[in-house]
Amino acid sequence: MEEAAHPYVPKDLKLPGYVPISMSMSSILSVYLASSLFVVTLVWFLFGRKKGKLEKLLMCWWAFSGLTHLVLEGYFVFSPEFFKDNTSCYLAQVWKEYSKGDSRYAGRDSAVIAVEGITAVIEGPASLLAVYAIAKGKTYSYVLQLAISLGQLYGCLVYFITAFLEGDNFATSSFYYYSYYIGANGWWVLIPLLISYRCWNKICEAATNGVETKMKKKIR
Amino acid sequence: MEEAAHPYVPKDLKLPGYVPISMSMSSILSVYLASSLFVVTLVWFLFGRKKGKLEKLLMCWWAFSGLTHLVLEGYFVFSPEFFKDNTSCYLAQVWKEYSKGDSRYAGRDSAVIAVEGITAVIEGPASLLAVYAIAKGKTYSYVLQLAISLGQLYGCLVYFITAFLEGDNFATSSFYYYSYYIGANGWWVLIPLLISYRCWNKICEAATNGVETKMKKKIR
Repeated sequence: MEEAAHPYVPKDLKLPGYVPISMSMSSILSVYLASSLFVVTLVWFLFGRKKGKLEKLLMCWWAFSGLTHLVLEGYFVFSPEFFKDNTSCYLAQVWKEYSKGDSRYAGRDSAVIAVEGITAVIEGPASLLAVYAIAKGKTYSYVLQLAISLGQLYGCLVYFITAFLEGDNFATSSFYYYSYYIGANGWWVLIPLLISYRCWNKICEAATNGVETKMKKKIR
Repeated sequence: MEEAAHPYVPKDLKLPGYVPISMSMSSILSVYLASSLFVVTLVWFLFGRKKGKLEKLLMCWWAFSGLTHLVLEGYFVFSPEFFKDNTSCYLAQVWKEYSKGDSRYAGRDSAVIAVEGITAVIEGPASLLAVYAIAKGKTYSYVLQLAISLGQLYGCLVYFITAFLEGDNFATSSFYYYSYYIGANGWWVLIPLLISYRCWNKICEAATNGVETKMKKKIR
């Protein structure tokens, strides 16, 4: 049986047993968007009651981000042979499609697996804990959100720097480069930056108040 | 001219133009230990006045860690050809020696460069800022220390996971494996873990006090 040629770049990437993608790009994206929308709606209306808009938005972000980390990225980390999948498993289709933007996924680049492993195993559950922490107004809410966001930023830095150092030539076309590699990951740079900034300030405010309270007590 | 054989593992690692190490292991370590001791003593007695023992220790750690990141790791990141150095430059000797514990340094592994780049450029200056923040009792002191420590832990995770995924066969002998690769890096796992734990608790304490103060104000 002749082996199907893969669509990824570099062309000499060896993927023995590769089975071509069987879902269209629009179907893959629709399923992801629809399930994300479902999660976000659920969190907004069920867990977000009695909460401000910003807190609701943050809970939606952490639920969406956490499930993406756990389910999508978790599947990738523990499925080294997803490119051979012939069962039309949705998660395998996602990574066959995403590899058009970054073939290091299909090629099992170790830096990508390391970053995705940390993201799936540590940041995934921690993101869901952040939903709970915001909902219950836990005192560790800001520091937890800061820690996860900094982790996401560190992961993105390693992800982009290693690609750059290795020649930045892993996308099938510039369309996939900008929409998948840059576009999809861009959200995990922008939003963690904003959350880190906010949490950092909130933590410093609390520390300032603590110092002021102590000083007032001393004056009394 | 015949090229010198390098001492690193794997043996087939290509290092064209390699110039053998010219300092002994004990000299290299002595210079590092002596300069670290100098920095630590300086910080302890000069900047540490009026501070508690734990705070003094932390300032020493951040000064030592920050300068290691900036000087040693900074040199590595921006000297892709350190293994060709024939001027007996001390910093090149350090990395020629350390590569016996992990040849990915001499081989310019992209995950190692990415982690070391982030460490040198972001965490190095941030560590020195932490010395200042502790000395001046800044309100951002704990959150800054937490952020750097989490970054150091993330870096170590990527460092160890990528080596494991690539076969964990980069040390010249088990002596170098355990003393350099495990031993030297172990400190940057253990101490950041302890600091993260402490800072996390301090931040949560401040947040709890903030909530209590707000509630008392409401009751009044």
